[in-house]
Amino acid sequence: MEGRAYEFELARVITTIRERSARVVGLQLPEGLKTIALSLAAEIAAESSAEVIVSGNSCYGACDLDEQLLGFVDLLVHFGHTNTFSGSTRKREPKENNYTNVVFVELRSTVDLKPVVERAIPLLTGSCIGLVATVQHVHGLDEAKQLLESAGKTALIGKAALPGLYDGQVLGCEFSTAEVPCDELLFIGSGAFHPAGLALYSGKRVIAADPFTLQLRSFEPDELRKKRWGAIARALDAESVGILIGLKSGQERLNDARRLKRQSESKGLTAFLIALTEITEERLLGFQVDAFVNTACPRLVEDLTQLRRPVLTLAEFEVVLGERKWEQLWE
Amino acid sequence: MEGRAYEFELARVITTIRERSARVVGLQLPEGLKTIALSLAAEIAAESSAEVIVSGNSCYGACDLDEQLLGFVDLLVHFGHTNTFSGSTRKREPKENNYTNVVFVELRSTVDLKPVVERAIPLLTGSCIGLVATVQHVHGLDEAKQLLESAGKTALIGKAALPGLYDGQVLGCEFSTAEVPCDELLFIGSGAFHPAGLALYSGKRVIAADPFTLQLRSFEPDELRKKRWGAIARALDAESVGILIGLKSGQERLNDARRLKRQSESKGLTAFLIALTEITEERLLGFQVDAFVNTACPRLVEDLTQLRRPVLTLAEFEVVLGERKWEQLWE
Repeated sequence: MEGRAYEFELARVITTIRERSARVVGLQLPEGLKTIALSLAAEIAAESSAEVIVSGNSCYGACDLDEQLLGFVDLLVHFGHTNTFSGSTRKREPKENNYTNVVFVELRSTVDLKPVVERAIPLLTGSCIGLVATVQHVHGLDEAKQLLESAGKTALIGKAALPGLYDGQVLGCEFSTAEVPCDELLFIGSGAFHPAGLALYSGKRVIAADPFTLQLRSFEPDELRKKRWGAIARALDAESVGILIGLKSGQERLNDARRLKRQSESKGLTAFLIALTEITEERLLGFQVDAFVNTACPRLVEDLTQLRRPVLTLAEFEVVLGERKWEQLWE
Repeated sequence: MEGRAYEFELARVITTIRERSARVVGLQLPEGLKTIALSLAAEIAAESSAEVIVSGNSCYGACDLDEQLLGFVDLLVHFGHTNTFSGSTRKREPKENNYTNVVFVELRSTVDLKPVVERAIPLLTGSCIGLVATVQHVHGLDEAKQLLESAGKTALIGKAALPGLYDGQVLGCEFSTAEVPCDELLFIGSGAFHPAGLALYSGKRVIAADPFTLQLRSFEPDELRKKRWGAIARALDAESVGILIGLKSGQERLNDARRLKRQSESKGLTAFLIALTEITEERLLGFQVDAFVNTACPRLVEDLTQLRRPVLTLAEFEVVLGERKWEQLWE
């Protein structure tokens, strides 16, 4: 496969296609890997004789299964995410039994973590370091721990909070493995999405180390939290609110949306339920309310900052309603 | 209701909600009317005591029912389109019986057509005029016909081609009422989407007359056709093609996509099946093929012109494959 080194587990995929006698197979890849989707499709079609349909829809997590495509295929191969629970937040129950026709391929990296960890060590100012990674790199965390300890640090790897997750693993909305008694966090993985969430939710400084590019980046919780406090403050005098319901099945929290509507109305706000599949600023523009609260992916709000109206998470909106204390925001 | 004058038929909507004992009601409005969705929701909730959930997803036709929202509601009220057939093209069979829990409100306009038709008459150069309109204005076509005849023109209103459609009505992908022996067409309605398609598919000059703004605009078929010929020409030396399958149930033509894949391969092209819900240029960028063919909404390709690769309709791609003659493109 091109470029980055991931284990695509094509032998397991082909075996599963044959075992299930799947005639039509769907492929779903995260955004960053869409460019290799077609060569993967060609390889799987050639080796399995199945018809392969590639999902062109966006895909940001196991909570974002392409259920429409699932309706047309015998088997969906979902690359890049762990099938721990199909819901997007720690509050949801596992639903994996509903997805017996989905194969999850976690895309384990084959890259050596040593070079980037050694580069990261001089940037770590604390003596006790929490070690976290995306699923692509969790199998290398023990080696990273040894490297940190050789450099005189204490390294802690938090226990997996849910069955199916790995020790030290973080998702975009699940950071409980970072809840270890450490001074700061070393995140191993790519992109800003996970380390920004880690800093925001843990309240700790995060050094993000990308094993592919060897780039290092620091994420400070205070900067990120100030932006969220600002959004909450702007929503405090809202008289009307649009409560957003995610239609992706792994992000649907209709009952929470209904509860928020009741609570809003009991505080004198006018509240509307608005259902969306892809939640973007463009799609919110036409709705004339003073604020929005998003009950789908809790991380989306960090990208919805160009609207004139604040868009809050469920927990942030509970602060507006007086149902939650400010200091309990990221619990 | 604000601004433009449409018949929202709220009495019928409320009666239907009560008759069906619907507890949860979804509302779906076309893009241009999203701004009034919340006031409509408040009115329906107040009068029916039902819980109302507004669809925030895009909506471009009856082929674009929000089926994900439909899964959460007892009744979906779909505003702005005719429930003739849920498919997007004249080749699909009616599926309306599948949607017994959808109420279609066609949003008939209450505006007088006389002022705009009188303004349009001096722009009509032919003596025989084909009269067409969106469903919002079809009930005024007889009056428009009389106005044209008083001005010495012959006016023809094409018979509805399908059960459920009206005489003179056009959809975004259904222009058979324009197939009358006339010199040019007078379209009554808003926006460029319908008149551009009318000119492109009929090959006739179209005067578009907006009864709300009183604006007139001329659409010339040759300009529009040249752009499509250019896209076809650019695809003639393609060695690989991405065949796009629409996942909106009213736009799904999987079997046509499969046929095109076989035909492409028999001509030596490499062909891939790619399934999408919203087809945008951004979503196609990552797929490395020389050309795309879109089997979903045939009108989409006219907006997908900024990609370096051509995006063709099914019929246009049949020309590339040598399965259709150029002169049969818009049949």
